[in-house]
Amino acid sequence: MSKIEQIAVVGGTHGNEFSGIYLLKKWQKNTQLLKRNSINVETVFANPKAFEANKRYIDCDLNRQFTLSDLANNKLANYEQSRAKVINHQLGPKGNAKTDFIIDLHNTTSNMGPSLILLKSDDFNKKMGAYVLSVMPEAVVVFEDQISMHEHYFLASIADQGVIVEIGPQPQSVIRQDVLDWMENMTNAILDFVELYNKDELPDLPKQYEAYEYVESIELPQDNKGERIGMVHKNVQDNDFKPLKAGDPIFTLFDGGEITYQGDYEAYPHFINEAAYYDNNLAMSLGKKRIVTID
Amino acid sequence: MSKIEQIAVVGGTHGNEFSGIYLLKKWQKNTQLLKRNSINVETVFANPKAFEANKRYIDCDLNRQFTLSDLANNKLANYEQSRAKVINHQLGPKGNAKTDFIIDLHNTTSNMGPSLILLKSDDFNKKMGAYVLSVMPEAVVVFEDQISMHEHYFLASIADQGVIVEIGPQPQSVIRQDVLDWMENMTNAILDFVELYNKDELPDLPKQYEAYEYVESIELPQDNKGERIGMVHKNVQDNDFKPLKAGDPIFTLFDGGEITYQGDYEAYPHFINEAAYYDNNLAMSLGKKRIVTID
Repeated sequence: MSKIEQIAVVGGTHGNEFSGIYLLKKWQKNTQLLKRNSINVETVFANPKAFEANKRYIDCDLNRQFTLSDLANNKLANYEQSRAKVINHQLGPKGNAKTDFIIDLHNTTSNMGPSLILLKSDDFNKKMGAYVLSVMPEAVVVFEDQISMHEHYFLASIADQGVIVEIGPQPQSVIRQDVLDWMENMTNAILDFVELYNKDELPDLPKQYEAYEYVESIELPQDNKGERIGMVHKNVQDNDFKPLKAGDPIFTLFDGGEITYQGDYEAYPHFINEAAYYDNNLAMSLGKKRIVTID
Repeated sequence: MSKIEQIAVVGGTHGNEFSGIYLLKKWQKNTQLLKRNSINVETVFANPKAFEANKRYIDCDLNRQFTLSDLANNKLANYEQSRAKVINHQLGPKGNAKTDFIIDLHNTTSNMGPSLILLKSDDFNKKMGAYVLSVMPEAVVVFEDQISMHEHYFLASIADQGVIVEIGPQPQSVIRQDVLDWMENMTNAILDFVELYNKDELPDLPKQYEAYEYVESIELPQDNKGERIGMVHKNVQDNDFKPLKAGDPIFTLFDGGEITYQGDYEAYPHFINEAAYYDNNLAMSLGKKRIVTID
């Protein structure tokens, strides 16, 4: 892999996830903070109109608009679809991007702590996970590499390398200091990693570490009219990345009943009860544990 | 005081506070759940359009529209101002209401636990606080009785007696089971209390208990252009109802500085970092401890 020279740090992809937006303001006032010798860092405020409206998005979720076919489809012309094309022009174009690496900053209402979502499992990403865990032991590494970067619809997939920094729990439209500090520390750890990777000066890293990989999303219980009839079970709430075994309660019904997890694998739920996922009636993501080995 | 015969239980006054809305659905399906012998209970879904839009409100905060002068002002005609007049017609009219007692159900993003906000400090309210604490020791009682019911702009002030059930922490647009359970338990405790009060069958209650009273609201730090320059300090975040003394840090500035509390009284912050208060740039409410004595 060639060196990472041009990096974009993106905040406000969702207008009510405040940590990235306020960090961008800080970094834009003091550009020294993101500076590293071997790289050039650009900051991008992805969805200013949604921030102004204090909403996740105006017309549709911006972070689902970056497949090659959607970017090429000029009939997709609402606000976020238009922003996607502008951002692709600015940082991309996807497939032949002038940006080498994108760090996209997000918050979740789920108790995921400081999570680093990696979209590839090549040497660069596996070592990034190891490095971030070495300087932030409280961090969690999650792979969403089940499809290629080309197929991903995330903003961070415009470049050949991209990650999502996902920090919670934080309610929508709130700034928590602990969450802001985690996001700033993780962003700095990633930039430090790239600097060291470019210079071939990485410290010794563990040859193996534990991470998670995305498997599937599961829905909140509904009746046959599509009405919601239950909620995330209190035993699962806030227990992101804690194992769930077949037979464990997963939902409580409003009438008092319970639904248990019936999967055929030990699941590690995350994005548990994320507010933004109610739009699609999603209750949580399920993952598996993955042992990452560095060659 | 005459008996409480007609009660309204109101949910969805704010459209993105889900606990009350989902409890109403449950109670409307099974009307036995709220039934008590000496009272008639009506349920009211106050702001259905805001719930549909998944927002606190469409045009303005419904729970600020219930002063006598605003209710009488026909020029105030936006959605929530119109809803206020309709609800006042249904449950009131304020000053001569057909409803004896209103229980208005709210959520907060702040770590307030199950809080009971009382708008009067007469015998009925003081005993209600004592009774609720006796059956829910984790509850907190807060008096917002600094002005009369007539002067209050809250929905619950339509009737001669009204309380706000305020449960958190819960992000906007989410249902947490722990928060839902607390709200259901507190509503049942209040209805049980009214039943016992009506029948003059209250159990022995402590003659004194600790509560809080609202004193003032304080703002997030801004520069002289009105731009936000800081956030709630991590030592204060989630510490609702924990004392704050002069000299304690209260805000962290984005540039790294700190602002300390400089008040002349031991303050008990609550509604700390409530998402909905950012509209008015409010950081939290400050209260004082109050010893409530029952004669």
